[in-house]
Amino acid sequence: MERRLTPVHRGGQGSSIMTTKTPAFKTLEWTGRSLRLLDQTLLPGRTRYITIRNEEELWDAIKRLVVRGAPAIGVAAGWGVYLGTRRRKPSSLAELKAVAGEVADYLATSRPTAVNLFWALEECRRAINGLGESESVRVGLQCLHDTALFIQRDDERRCAAIARHGAPLPKGAKGVLTHCSAGAPATAGVGTAVGVILRAASTRRLTVYVDETRPLLQGARLTAWELKNAGVDYRLITDSMAASAMQRGLVQAIVTGADRIAANGDSANKIGTMPLAICAKHFGIPFHIAAPISTIDFSLKSGEAIPIEERADEEVTGFGGTSTAPKGTRTFNPAFDVVSAKLISAIITEKGVVRAPYRKNLSALRPKTGGGNK
Amino acid sequence: MERRLTPVHRGGQGSSIMTTKTPAFKTLEWTGRSLRLLDQTLLPGRTRYITIRNEEELWDAIKRLVVRGAPAIGVAAGWGVYLGTRRRKPSSLAELKAVAGEVADYLATSRPTAVNLFWALEECRRAINGLGESESVRVGLQCLHDTALFIQRDDERRCAAIARHGAPLPKGAKGVLTHCSAGAPATAGVGTAVGVILRAASTRRLTVYVDETRPLLQGARLTAWELKNAGVDYRLITDSMAASAMQRGLVQAIVTGADRIAANGDSANKIGTMPLAICAKHFGIPFHIAAPISTIDFSLKSGEAIPIEERADEEVTGFGGTSTAPKGTRTFNPAFDVVSAKLISAIITEKGVVRAPYRKNLSALRPKTGGGNK
Repeated sequence: MERRLTPVHRGGQGSSIMTTKTPAFKTLEWTGRSLRLLDQTLLPGRTRYITIRNEEELWDAIKRLVVRGAPAIGVAAGWGVYLGTRRRKPSSLAELKAVAGEVADYLATSRPTAVNLFWALEECRRAINGLGESESVRVGLQCLHDTALFIQRDDERRCAAIARHGAPLPKGAKGVLTHCSAGAPATAGVGTAVGVILRAASTRRLTVYVDETRPLLQGARLTAWELKNAGVDYRLITDSMAASAMQRGLVQAIVTGADRIAANGDSANKIGTMPLAICAKHFGIPFHIAAPISTIDFSLKSGEAIPIEERADEEVTGFGGTSTAPKGTRTFNPAFDVVSAKLISAIITEKGVVRAPYRKNLSALRPKTGGGNK
Repeated sequence: MERRLTPVHRGGQGSSIMTTKTPAFKTLEWTGRSLRLLDQTLLPGRTRYITIRNEEELWDAIKRLVVRGAPAIGVAAGWGVYLGTRRRKPSSLAELKAVAGEVADYLATSRPTAVNLFWALEECRRAINGLGESESVRVGLQCLHDTALFIQRDDERRCAAIARHGAPLPKGAKGVLTHCSAGAPATAGVGTAVGVILRAASTRRLTVYVDETRPLLQGARLTAWELKNAGVDYRLITDSMAASAMQRGLVQAIVTGADRIAANGDSANKIGTMPLAICAKHFGIPFHIAAPISTIDFSLKSGEAIPIEERADEEVTGFGGTSTAPKGTRTFNPAFDVVSAKLISAIITEKGVVRAPYRKNLSALRPKTGGGNK
């Protein structure tokens, strides 16, 4: 199988730090003036980019899932704080700090579950609040710009490191299963779970079983598209077929991303992940989470405290404009579920592979300073 | 909640034998000349009936899921043997027996998993082969007609009895979950699992959680429609949300149908049933199967021997006519999965509720004569 170099920039200097198939698209791109987002709601039918010029446009893009995936939301939020603060043209650093705080507060209301959003907003606040009072507005804006750029490039590096640490994990597996899209579309880099899988697939034959991931079909639309672009063998399945794939021995490992991980290892991820983990346990198949450390919310003791977003009925009563249920049908539509740490074989982070006991072993990865982990 | 009488005919004589909400449609109807089938592929958008005049039209209707659900397929097959034999105009009873056998063999190739199909075909063969050689062709055709009619009315009675036996089961449950469509559209009567649920809902407040049931959405299209028609409270969920409904305590019992039950109680049902049973066990929620005794295949020791139909890629790569995956995407698309008997709290039959040990307790229900169970 072909290997290609992915240039990953560290602080602006080109340096190749890993070998994995390059995504054929850019999930997020800073143009120098605005943020360019791949519109993930239209994939795979249409590849369209939209331009984000201010925080309202970004809020809407996050809410509508134009940009989705916990790490990508975090990266976008960094640029959102910069764009929103810049356009208000603050006249002093004090005003700039206040404005940046308001913009961050506003963006924090877009989606409640993915903690990387709050982490990135906190990074922006910390950076700007660290500036001395004598600094100029220009320096303040530059600081927000550089923070957003750092978060983005940092995410690229973290993804690469997660892929490197995780690739040996599904050892001997001929079939790997994943859920939702924890690939390049969910990050600024090669992805989390899909990064691991792509890197593993670059060294040996692997068939990837892709859960379509109802209701919004991120697996069918994004992961299948990404694997196809990368030339990796895959089979699309409905979420309800994953257990059969496990039972028949088609799958020897499961790798998914996460949107928020509690201090005890309980992990929230796209709805449908929890039953996968329960079935994996039932069939004796290892279940792995791949996520950057920024996904860990050390303030939450367990998964019970993770807020779960509930979304509109229309997502469940149809798809892509086609209604499939009787008019007036009500739904129960949680966007995420929580996998008990007991069901997780390992959590793959950029600092290495973490296993139980999670409270102790995750704690060792806790960033030294405040909530961030630069 | 309103109760209405459902007239169920026994041998042509009207007699009300149960009280449950009446379906607002007829899944199958013998018009006197042909079989009228509700086209279940078009629901809930369109209510259209199609006319079946011969065995080829029926084969196609079974394959395309115009008629689906193990009991309904069995009932339709009975009429198919009559229609197919009649139109060939056999000139002797011997020829009629041969023709009926050919038609039955042909219809048996339409779908491989639901055993009620083979059971009904065997009923037709046994009935016709039981006729003395001196009987006329007219008597032979009348025998096939009466057998088909008996299978249909028998199914109505069995459904009613299953509902009666099963209704007390989800005792105290405020929420019940079901998968696929094991209701009136799957039978000639009030359904199996949905019959149980409707009867329970006729005596107390119940919310039904309906799995949409990918890939063909029988839950969203048929069960939701049926519950709406019956005025029963329901919430539509994606299959991947069932485990969350269990975890949050919204569901205290699960009831599904079955397409084939092995002698040890292992039960094949629509894909996605097996992970439900595994999650139910995980959360300590009872998991029930509701099915007529004709669903039990006493010739199979365990579920491993149940053949599982695999269907076309297009069912998985699209949703309601919209293509959702990249072109050329391959799938793994088993139409059914098998729930281990160990995960089944009870099997509700027309003869009563059966619990473990299933091999012994199901065996007690085994029909005395041959493969049938009249």
